[in-house]
Amino acid sequence: MYSVTVRGHMLIAHSLRGDVFGPAQALHGATYVVDVEFRRRDLDADGIVVDIGRATESLNKVLGALSYRNLDDDPAFEGRNTTTEFLARVVFDRLVAAIRGGELGAGAVESIKVSLHESHIAAASFDGRVAG
Amino acid sequence: MYSVTVRGHMLIAHSLRGDVFGPAQALHGATYVVDVEFRRRDLDADGIVVDIGRATESLNKVLGALSYRNLDDDPAFEGRNTTTEFLARVVFDRLVAAIRGGELGAGAVESIKVSLHESHIAAASFDGRVAG
Amino acid sequence: MYSVTVRGHMLIAHSLRGDVFGPAQALHGATYVVDVEFRRRDLDADGIVVDIGRATESLNKVLGALSYRNLDDDPAFEGRNTTTEFLARVVFDRLVAAIRGGELGAGAVESIKVSLHESHIAAASFDGRVAG
Amino acid sequence: MYSVTVRGHMLIAHSLRGDVFGPAQALHGATYVVDVEFRRRDLDADGIVVDIGRATESLNKVLGALSYRNLDDDPAFEGRNTTTEFLARVVFDRLVAAIRGGELGAGAVESIKVSLHESHIAAASFDGRVAG
Amino acid sequence: MYSVTVRGHMLIAHSLRGDVFGPAQALHGATYVVDVEFRRRDLDADGIVVDIGRATESLNKVLGALSYRNLDDDPAFEGRNTTTEFLARVVFDRLVAAIRGGELGAGAVESIKVSLHESHIAAASFDGRVAG
Amino acid sequence: MYSVTVRGHMLIAHSLRGDVFGPAQALHGATYVVDVEFRRRDLDADGIVVDIGRATESLNKVLGALSYRNLDDDPAFEGRNTTTEFLARVVFDRLVAAIRGGELGAGAVESIKVSLHESHIAAASFDGRVAG
Repeated sequence: MYSVTVRGHMLIAHSLRGDVFGPAQALHGATYVVDVEFRRRDLDADGIVVDIGRATESLNKVLGALSYRNLDDDPAFEGRNTTTEFLARVVFDRLVAAIRGGELGAGAVESIKVSLHESHIAAASFDGRVAG
Repeated sequence: MYSVTVRGHMLIAHSLRGDVFGPAQALHGATYVVDVEFRRRDLDADGIVVDIGRATESLNKVLGALSYRNLDDDPAFEGRNTTTEFLARVVFDRLVAAIRGGELGAGAVESIKVSLHESHIAAASFDGRVAG
Repeated sequence: MYSVTVRGHMLIAHSLRGDVFGPAQALHGATYVVDVEFRRRDLDADGIVVDIGRATESLNKVLGALSYRNLDDDPAFEGRNTTTEFLARVVFDRLVAAIRGGELGAGAVESIKVSLHESHIAAASFDGRVAG
Repeated sequence: MYSVTVRGHMLIAHSLRGDVFGPAQALHGATYVVDVEFRRRDLDADGIVVDIGRATESLNKVLGALSYRNLDDDPAFEGRNTTTEFLARVVFDRLVAAIRGGELGAGAVESIKVSLHESHIAAASFDGRVAG
Repeated sequence: MYSVTVRGHMLIAHSLRGDVFGPAQALHGATYVVDVEFRRRDLDADGIVVDIGRATESLNKVLGALSYRNLDDDPAFEGRNTTTEFLARVVFDRLVAAIRGGELGAGAVESIKVSLHESHIAAASFDGRVAG
Repeated sequence: MYSVTVRGHMLIAHSLRGDVFGPAQALHGATYVVDVEFRRRDLDADGIVVDIGRATESLNKVLGALSYRNLDDDPAFEGRNTTTEFLARVVFDRLVAAIRGGELGAGAVESIKVSLHESHIAAASFDGRVAG
């Protein structure tokens, strides 16, 4: 299996509901350094998994729509805890939609893994298939 | 698949038996920077894989029992080479026991990967299922 | 010159006032991974610059008072932009006060450098002397 | 599953053919920091996946044959784009040949993953089985 | 002293003349991950050392003029070895010219340090004053 | 000022005497990832600060004499605590002796900084002049 990984980041504010979150129940924020690994079985005619430039653009478009915001005010997340795990899934879902919409070309990306690093000692990810 | 990864470290002395180890047959030591990735299929009601605070505490408890020691003197490892691979398995087994004992809540962690970084150019890991 | 460096982190929300900040004028947040380098000319009788355990505790106390908060609501920062540079200075000032108050022992720390990493591509620091 | 990972690097020049590569169609170059993860189900009698010293030597031999060269002039790559993905596969194939040739001992390495980091924001890999 | 650091990168081909360079006398290439630290004594009215966005743009403009090229063909470097140290100075000189030309605003940047990381085990830098 | 930085590592066992060291009073060990920054005002005729190959060899010779050993048994350190700070100075002194002995050529290295990273959250360094 081949893969290509690109990196971006976003800066958000949010709060989390539930005793398990302790001090993180208060409004605070985080930088998420985001790695996305795109995987496919064979390379295309150019010898690539995906155009790194377009993959980075797609990632930055997804991250740009979340960055510099207070996620508590985003109707898309109403009633949900925007944990690192949950946000990894949000980025995953939006990238999968972009791939299915042809934004990365007529490629055959089979699966992607989205990893959010929230500090030097903690991260979360979502890994899944692109096909419906 | 969702995952959460937390990081800790330990400082140990040991020696290794066998010609393959060359100079590492002498008593020496290492820092192991330890990453543990906890995986599960679905998030819990709070939107998490596992409570990062409790996961870090469990990891630090396991690492604390090994750190600042000469592993050659540990009866648990008698007759065994405490290689990086072997120690990855030891940390894995002890964390699995903690998870099965309910230390991380009634969660549904399916598998974990324990990675020990012994320098900027070498690491080892053990990856396996939590269920018995 | 000898130095010892320890690392911690904090997660905060804030907004910045001024056209120069573009989208960062909205409420958002950041993880700051914080490195503090303590410097002195000679080692003490134990052979150290500073007790790493106590240095880490002092740093975590300073970071704990800032973390998991919306800095826009902190009276200490009223009328100020809590930029990365500014926060590096805040951490510096509070650590210097702790050192002068004897929290790190009767040591002779001469200067410290506080670096805040806000992402994989941006950081800020304040470097200055401890003596009044 | 156990794994051991070792790191090396190579410095090469090359150009890429195809509009998708934009400015990378011109002759340029790259540093590839290369991680190879060796995996097997059980440890050998010494308690290891593979001798880290020999694994590093094998990796350096493969990288040494590629490093400090203009890959456009290498007959082995004639008519091919030496993309990061493609080079990950080249390193993979040559390491698999070395393993099958007994260079890493009579071990039971089952699969390897070769990752090439071309910058702080982009990487590619090939992951596959060692057996024929 | 305050500082702000931003990161970029470039991918170049070149060869080096002189026995000291061994295999690097052949045409090869490198990725340089480039950190630039901007320093000044006091923050401006907005509370910053320099606008990170503009600093990153200036850096990317300088790196863009070097990236995806064979530096052996650049008339600006005729008769010179484009070592990592030398290139650190080139980036320094061009950024200083941009600062003096007002590209980063009417700021009071006193000195900058340009660091080029050529692999995980080697780097070079040039550190100097901005004023003429 | 120009600089070149190279990286190596060593694996040692030791114990530390003094209440301040807490659990580190027991025999344990550490990996030290070692960065050495060589600085000089002007480049030599080849355009370099120092030959990276020879610098790495010199560093590895110094680290090789310390690695895979129990430093408690080294007569050179009798009655001394081999703290990270102290070891940074030992590596510094030995490299300075090598430079003065001509091992790095007839160069004009003015100062060096030796940094020992003992984990992802702690490091120590010694920075000083090469001239007598």
